[in-house]
Amino acid sequence: MNGDACKDLKLVEANDFFFTGLHLAGNTSNPLGSKVTPVFVDQLPGLNTLGISVARLDYAPRGLNPPHTHPRASEIFTVIEGTFYVGFVTSNPENRLVSKMLYKGDVFVFPQGLIHFEYNMGPYNAIAMAALSSENPGVIVMASALFGSKPPISGDVLAKAFQVDNKVVQGLQYKFY
Amino acid sequence: MNGDACKDLKLVEANDFFFTGLHLAGNTSNPLGSKVTPVFVDQLPGLNTLGISVARLDYAPRGLNPPHTHPRASEIFTVIEGTFYVGFVTSNPENRLVSKMLYKGDVFVFPQGLIHFEYNMGPYNAIAMAALSSENPGVIVMASALFGSKPPISGDVLAKAFQVDNKVVQGLQYKFY
Amino acid sequence: MNGDACKDLKLVEANDFFFTGLHLAGNTSNPLGSKVTPVFVDQLPGLNTLGISVARLDYAPRGLNPPHTHPRASEIFTVIEGTFYVGFVTSNPENRLVSKMLYKGDVFVFPQGLIHFEYNMGPYNAIAMAALSSENPGVIVMASALFGSKPPISGDVLAKAFQVDNKVVQGLQYKFY
Amino acid sequence: MNGDACKDLKLVEANDFFFTGLHLAGNTSNPLGSKVTPVFVDQLPGLNTLGISVARLDYAPRGLNPPHTHPRASEIFTVIEGTFYVGFVTSNPENRLVSKMLYKGDVFVFPQGLIHFEYNMGPYNAIAMAALSSENPGVIVMASALFGSKPPISGDVLAKAFQVDNKVVQGLQYKFY
Amino acid sequence: MNGDACKDLKLVEANDFFFTGLHLAGNTSNPLGSKVTPVFVDQLPGLNTLGISVARLDYAPRGLNPPHTHPRASEIFTVIEGTFYVGFVTSNPENRLVSKMLYKGDVFVFPQGLIHFEYNMGPYNAIAMAALSSENPGVIVMASALFGSKPPISGDVLAKAFQVDNKVVQGLQYKFY
Amino acid sequence: MNGDACKDLKLVEANDFFFTGLHLAGNTSNPLGSKVTPVFVDQLPGLNTLGISVARLDYAPRGLNPPHTHPRASEIFTVIEGTFYVGFVTSNPENRLVSKMLYKGDVFVFPQGLIHFEYNMGPYNAIAMAALSSENPGVIVMASALFGSKPPISGDVLAKAFQVDNKVVQGLQYKFY
Repeated sequence: MNGDACKDLKLVEANDFFFTGLHLAGNTSNPLGSKVTPVFVDQLPGLNTLGISVARLDYAPRGLNPPHTHPRASEIFTVIEGTFYVGFVTSNPENRLVSKMLYKGDVFVFPQGLIHFEYNMGPYNAIAMAALSSENPGVIVMASALFGSKPPISGDVLAKAFQVDNKVVQGLQYKFY
Repeated sequence: MNGDACKDLKLVEANDFFFTGLHLAGNTSNPLGSKVTPVFVDQLPGLNTLGISVARLDYAPRGLNPPHTHPRASEIFTVIEGTFYVGFVTSNPENRLVSKMLYKGDVFVFPQGLIHFEYNMGPYNAIAMAALSSENPGVIVMASALFGSKPPISGDVLAKAFQVDNKVVQGLQYKFY
Repeated sequence: MNGDACKDLKLVEANDFFFTGLHLAGNTSNPLGSKVTPVFVDQLPGLNTLGISVARLDYAPRGLNPPHTHPRASEIFTVIEGTFYVGFVTSNPENRLVSKMLYKGDVFVFPQGLIHFEYNMGPYNAIAMAALSSENPGVIVMASALFGSKPPISGDVLAKAFQVDNKVVQGLQYKFY
Repeated sequence: MNGDACKDLKLVEANDFFFTGLHLAGNTSNPLGSKVTPVFVDQLPGLNTLGISVARLDYAPRGLNPPHTHPRASEIFTVIEGTFYVGFVTSNPENRLVSKMLYKGDVFVFPQGLIHFEYNMGPYNAIAMAALSSENPGVIVMASALFGSKPPISGDVLAKAFQVDNKVVQGLQYKFY
Repeated sequence: MNGDACKDLKLVEANDFFFTGLHLAGNTSNPLGSKVTPVFVDQLPGLNTLGISVARLDYAPRGLNPPHTHPRASEIFTVIEGTFYVGFVTSNPENRLVSKMLYKGDVFVFPQGLIHFEYNMGPYNAIAMAALSSENPGVIVMASALFGSKPPISGDVLAKAFQVDNKVVQGLQYKFY
Repeated sequence: MNGDACKDLKLVEANDFFFTGLHLAGNTSNPLGSKVTPVFVDQLPGLNTLGISVARLDYAPRGLNPPHTHPRASEIFTVIEGTFYVGFVTSNPENRLVSKMLYKGDVFVFPQGLIHFEYNMGPYNAIAMAALSSENPGVIVMASALFGSKPPISGDVLAKAFQVDNKVVQGLQYKFY
């Protein structure tokens, strides 16, 4: 995994550069109604050092890929099937929401490290493909990282950050832990 | 700002590499009780292309620099005065909280793009210095980006993402907008 | 186009990050029976500095995306529909062909700068998606660059390089010029 | 080979940064009449991580360094002795040939990943020095990669790519295999 | 130390990202009257791959951090206490000195690889913080590298370089060896 | 000069990638007895963004390329004619001199940012070629930067740094200013 790609090429075989199964729909039977099938370096070792990865995204009707960031990658999002409301938020202090309705064949860009989301607005299952500018982009889901970390972030911190009382924080932590 | 640092060196003067005022405490009279004084490329043009910046951080008692990320930088946090509870959360699906109590002279690292926070646990004003691995690191404050974006993110998206009802979302948006 | 992505974010609008039309099949009525629809920085300005791009690839039956390289990018190739014979050749002196039959949902990697090709082995039109690790990957089609350059490469050079006589070179140049 | 250059400096000796023999002419008794003597990281371990390498190039009269690319490096070509016809071809769809006659003391640049060649036009042996922007630039010789790969690329692919019949392809494969 | 930062995050603990003791003054009882306390990757392993480090700098009255370079980093220098005369020299052939008097709270930038120095002009101990754009910036102290190397650089070389006679060189070598 | 190399390729001509005159000996009639003829981006605009450059080095008998650094490049040094004593010094605190005698055809590496020198030990003019890992490597000549900067570095700083009295410093400044 830390080798020199070029040296590797003398020894590797085609299967090191191969992954199968991206035609299979992910299971969206979960509270968010969405499922990511990543093809990152952990799934496809031949990506090591190449600075790129992809993922398949499935959405039930009203399924949501909730606000998240990729700490080490920008993303190109391509709609295969469905109608999406997507957006990203720019940095502080502007916090500008750049959003758009997307339809089949539309392409949208989420710049590195910015919070973004995609929401299936249509009545049917929807599918998208993501291309990411790192073989190991990382995913930080806002709700899970903030309220579902192990161990949990101190309730005082979260209550102050979101300007709610500790009870609301505990309710959120209960859901995501 | 987009020039070649070396060429610039023939024309620039000392003031292009200079910033003053970092000994002055920031005004922490705000709901979070903290204030960041950045010395990024916007404040110090000579940083352009150099891949580094700094900031002064001031905290009232129980002041919080709330959960945030830097989309383009890692950070080294150094305690000048005070007692801090700090932490960062690793990527999905682990969402591991790596936290520690810090005292005067302690140094802690927040890797690029990860959610982190610092909370002044002591009864006095506290001060820290941050060093960041980009001249333009960006700051994404979770609460502001999620609930205070302009225009706001659709309530349906936030309600689903945080698994709360729309009323809770509206309350949060009311606070941060 | 040469600006700082972050600065841009204060001024840009959603359309700067948007491209439409990737659901439309490219016209494969040409001798190779294939068509590339690129979404590079020239088509989608918001990709500037982000280090990523995508393309749609259409193939008639027995359609070929002929041996080519991307001088500044690695590629992930994902089969949407069809059956492909794909491969890349490693560097001198090994010149090892790493090839594989690919089916719907299969993913394959072409490392940066290596000669690769994809050939639709099936009786139907085929579709693939490419993700590339540069917003401006470049495409060098071997046959066109070698025998169709403007002006042409000297016949002596090509005859010696391919160890054929000048007449064969002229025949090839006639086809690709 | 994957170590930290700085750490290495505590242990290494002068010989790790040393290579000898670049004054010796390479043997050009081969069909192309040229020979490359590389000083890459495989020959000079001290180059690791430094992003640079060199090579000596020898040419018999009418000797050719045939069309090739370096997948990970740009090249500066300096004429030590002789008269050369050199060129590179830009990316698709322009496929513009940028060529020039070079004489003793002339310098020419081949940008990263582009097909280029050098041909000794003079009646004497010729010598050049190449500097490359990677310690492991790689070399892809067009004729060998296309027609001499192991195993060979399918004749159907090559016939279609070069728009010749299979017999011509087989003839070329016979020569380069 | 050569691992993938992201993988590490699954195993590491808070102490891997932690260093203590930067509130302690360095011992400046030496001929230069200054002391650097580095927090580089050797002292704080969690910095690996993150491209940043810091250091504490202590100066006795008239203490000097003598002319030096960081071969792999730019530096931001922040005055915590004291009055400094600082400067850097641009590249050949300009050799322009860019210097300034700095006071508490002032910030100055030393671009990568340029010779720079800081001199405590005040009557008291002085303190500064440095932020550097590499986890392993390196330090080359001019006087020590030139006249104190082990083994010494040939006296002929140094005498010619500084246009002094060999006796002067021997005197300097005697002091720094 | 700040454009996108690929875009440029549509407009540029061969002369943008061309430099002539490297067969001409530099004039070594100067106190050091050496002369550098650079082919950097200022001399050869086509090098822009390519990360490489070269230079010709001429030395009179006992000619010296005095201790210097390249702040943004590593260097490969190749002996064309002559006998050299060369070396570089590693970082503080080791300050290890890594040196070697070099003869015709020998190659030596100077890692980025380290002080190095080359001294013609032979009775004849000597010639070398340098390859550098940046199109704009920069050159910092120790003696000139330290004692010949404009304006001069304060004598107190230099006297303390080199542990000599101010008179010695003034003598050196007189020579290099």
